[in-house]
Amino acid sequence: MSGSAISIDLNADLGEGFGPYGFGEDEALLRIVSSANVACGFHAGDPSIMRRTVEQCLEHGVAIGAHPGLPDRLGFGRREMRITAQEAGDWLTYQLGALQAIAAAAGGEVRHVKPHGALYHMVSKDEVLAEAVVRAIRAVDGRLLVYGPPNSRLREAAERAGLAFAAEGFADRAYAADGSLVSRETPGALLETEEQALGQALSLAKYGYAVTPEGVRVKLDVRTICIHGDAPGAAERAALLARGLLSAGVSIAAPCQIGGSFVER
Amino acid sequence: MSGSAISIDLNADLGEGFGPYGFGEDEALLRIVSSANVACGFHAGDPSIMRRTVEQCLEHGVAIGAHPGLPDRLGFGRREMRITAQEAGDWLTYQLGALQAIAAAAGGEVRHVKPHGALYHMVSKDEVLAEAVVRAIRAVDGRLLVYGPPNSRLREAAERAGLAFAAEGFADRAYAADGSLVSRETPGALLETEEQALGQALSLAKYGYAVTPEGVRVKLDVRTICIHGDAPGAAERAALLARGLLSAGVSIAAPCQIGGSFVER
Amino acid sequence: MSGSAISIDLNADLGEGFGPYGFGEDEALLRIVSSANVACGFHAGDPSIMRRTVEQCLEHGVAIGAHPGLPDRLGFGRREMRITAQEAGDWLTYQLGALQAIAAAAGGEVRHVKPHGALYHMVSKDEVLAEAVVRAIRAVDGRLLVYGPPNSRLREAAERAGLAFAAEGFADRAYAADGSLVSRETPGALLETEEQALGQALSLAKYGYAVTPEGVRVKLDVRTICIHGDAPGAAERAALLARGLLSAGVSIAAPCQIGGSFVER
Amino acid sequence: MSGSAISIDLNADLGEGFGPYGFGEDEALLRIVSSANVACGFHAGDPSIMRRTVEQCLEHGVAIGAHPGLPDRLGFGRREMRITAQEAGDWLTYQLGALQAIAAAAGGEVRHVKPHGALYHMVSKDEVLAEAVVRAIRAVDGRLLVYGPPNSRLREAAERAGLAFAAEGFADRAYAADGSLVSRETPGALLETEEQALGQALSLAKYGYAVTPEGVRVKLDVRTICIHGDAPGAAERAALLARGLLSAGVSIAAPCQIGGSFVER
Repeated sequence: MSGSAISIDLNADLGEGFGPYGFGEDEALLRIVSSANVACGFHAGDPSIMRRTVEQCLEHGVAIGAHPGLPDRLGFGRREMRITAQEAGDWLTYQLGALQAIAAAAGGEVRHVKPHGALYHMVSKDEVLAEAVVRAIRAVDGRLLVYGPPNSRLREAAERAGLAFAAEGFADRAYAADGSLVSRETPGALLETEEQALGQALSLAKYGYAVTPEGVRVKLDVRTICIHGDAPGAAERAALLARGLLSAGVSIAAPCQIGGSFVER
Repeated sequence: MSGSAISIDLNADLGEGFGPYGFGEDEALLRIVSSANVACGFHAGDPSIMRRTVEQCLEHGVAIGAHPGLPDRLGFGRREMRITAQEAGDWLTYQLGALQAIAAAAGGEVRHVKPHGALYHMVSKDEVLAEAVVRAIRAVDGRLLVYGPPNSRLREAAERAGLAFAAEGFADRAYAADGSLVSRETPGALLETEEQALGQALSLAKYGYAVTPEGVRVKLDVRTICIHGDAPGAAERAALLARGLLSAGVSIAAPCQIGGSFVER
Repeated sequence: MSGSAISIDLNADLGEGFGPYGFGEDEALLRIVSSANVACGFHAGDPSIMRRTVEQCLEHGVAIGAHPGLPDRLGFGRREMRITAQEAGDWLTYQLGALQAIAAAAGGEVRHVKPHGALYHMVSKDEVLAEAVVRAIRAVDGRLLVYGPPNSRLREAAERAGLAFAAEGFADRAYAADGSLVSRETPGALLETEEQALGQALSLAKYGYAVTPEGVRVKLDVRTICIHGDAPGAAERAALLARGLLSAGVSIAAPCQIGGSFVER
Repeated sequence: MSGSAISIDLNADLGEGFGPYGFGEDEALLRIVSSANVACGFHAGDPSIMRRTVEQCLEHGVAIGAHPGLPDRLGFGRREMRITAQEAGDWLTYQLGALQAIAAAAGGEVRHVKPHGALYHMVSKDEVLAEAVVRAIRAVDGRLLVYGPPNSRLREAAERAGLAFAAEGFADRAYAADGSLVSRETPGALLETEEQALGQALSLAKYGYAVTPEGVRVKLDVRTICIHGDAPGAAERAALLARGLLSAGVSIAAPCQIGGSFVER
């Protein structure tokens, strides 16, 4: 693609139902995002939901990614638990392989891995767990992209291992001067208006920085923006954000859809 | 290989523990069998046990197979349940893919699929479920062998779909004149002495038939003999059987280890 | 209460969510029904949902009942499975006891038991399972009412064991001349208009019979009418039904709220 | 009983199998201990195993206690996880109620509660969780005894709530001068010979103190000694310990079997 085009990935968590239970607004999100993080049956999802989600991704041209989580359906994988690096790796391999087979049977392919929930936080902070997860991903398929926080043990581990990494940002969360997210408890942590969210998304996509509540620019080489789909009205806000990005000349595409150096400024 | 060699596969169910629980005599069986059916986390097994079992198979040169079951740990996958063909297929794809990734990460490869427990019985009798399972296997990897009963809907479905099928026999169960197993409730259903079991195994391996309690020869083109490992003394009996086969000039090898026309008479 | 009053129980399945998942319209149904069948953590529900549901029942004066099911969350307890009578009894005791403690801790009490889903069907048809379930209920508390189909093995077992039984009917399903439900596949099986449903509910409550599609009266001593809450618009239809019953002079009350001979005509 | 008799309780974790899986040496331990901590289906155990364990306790005159754990079968309830006080309480109520019903159906009664594994450690250290668990126990049955570490948040919470508390000690673990257990990593942490273990058990039972590796006496008002049953040879060592206690004139009895002031010195 030409060097002048600017694009960003929008990713969302999909397929988070289980058995009789639905979850989130998958239908709406599939029309908006370029990457799907598909639950793999540990914290959410089941084989039939995974297959349907993969089929929907293929219909909508959405890149399929694995969203492996902790084996805790009751807690939706959101509770941190003390696990060994070996367990983290084994659980990741299992979930990734299950989704790969389901994707392959549907004529698709898994292109990225984004750890879910508490596991996401654990591999962001813990170098040993991050290494184990990265090693597991690479042992299955060294071409897989890893999605995760910009400044994280996961990123360091992925880059050391030679895996492509897509730093994830948020349109609706304020950043601190060190590039971390402002805690939800702090006033101003949420960018509540659509204009604010679009402004931050554009800033991240076009210029590679966010502006802190104090007005400081923070460099953040974000390749993908996380879209939440389980809050009321979330899908509508996401649609507005996507429309705003397109109007501003930013195309929406998954990293795997635009090649290695996927965001060019 | 030369046309004069005679070989048979011995297969056993391995990796059937879960979390803190052990099950069966995997260590002993790994020194005896040529094919392992590895539990895939639905009726038994978990990712770490699967990895260790796969590693052990690679150490011992035992062919790795998937042993997908029903999602019923409490019942060990032994209770029949009413499921749809779609569910059967989705569950199989998921479990097979999980084991494939674990095997690949360990430097190995899944070579066959044997449905477990109640699922084994269901796909033997029910054409629609058999088709669904076979379709799922082929969609993942058309080179996979299917292990199952000689006269079964599973075999018919596998052969229609062009998948290689290895008919499974039992050394210690009497056969009826129609090739079915004599019910366990019938006197004489179990071949209890080691001599009887070895006699039937040799007869199946060398001549392709069993002899009913009434003395009738039943043609049974059995490629693999199922070794049970969870009864007391089972591993010792299996070792005697294996030694008896080798002494009689029958080599023990998995179908995948000796090529397509793997048993030659 | 006076002997001239006519009353009927309306029961609904509540607390069928799990962990992060909601299910059905509990809030709306609690304002309508007199009996709640609370999922007990096998097919649906979890301890926190059970507690909240019990608390809501106490707030709304709705009688608390146990809704034990098969241990199959993925299938929502709707898949029949082959189980032993001993298992059926043990599972029932476990689930019932769990709800009893939760109810007691909230200042309430479990008053009835209605088997859920596939278990409901299994104990309707299978005498041995019905006996086991009834024995389990009685061993825990002989004052518990059993809810189930009018002509069923469950009823026979309950009555033999001296447990009070409340026959359950449906307002929106047609009955055949033998008192069984017309199969859903048959045209006319569903009473689709609100008038039809109210007509049947009134007929059951006031006169103790239903009228078949062919115009035949079937005697059905129904004490409780099942209200479905998980279909779109179900809660609204239920509210209309309840209002219709009240307008016609039929009060809505749980059997436990009106004493032993709880429906008087 | 007379004030001159000295007795101590021996408790063991029983019923920790699941479905097809056995665990530990229940048969042997039932002949030794006076209190059983019965797994309640979260970290281990299932309704049928619970029933059988309760029946065995009644046969052997062993006091029945609940052993509630975290909902993590894969990790056997040994992994700490971040949970809320509300969850801790709800999970405890559920498990306790389930066992109560099973015990009642078998003609027995639950007499104590000992939190299991990671939950045991969590309620020892965390006051909020300890309060929640104690509140849950009291709401179900205020006569239940609580077993736990001598110096723990659990003890404080139980005593504040007016619940009887039985401090638990170990015969085979060295104590530090502050009454805590010497870490397993420290040399001398394990009292490895039978003589050492018996010596400590007698010292705890008869005199109410342990002696640290440095020779310091630590006052420990231990009412019950924990017997481990899942290590090889554990049941035999426990039998020797029990015999040694009896020979030294210390009787073995559960607190509930000898009344409120159950250990008299």
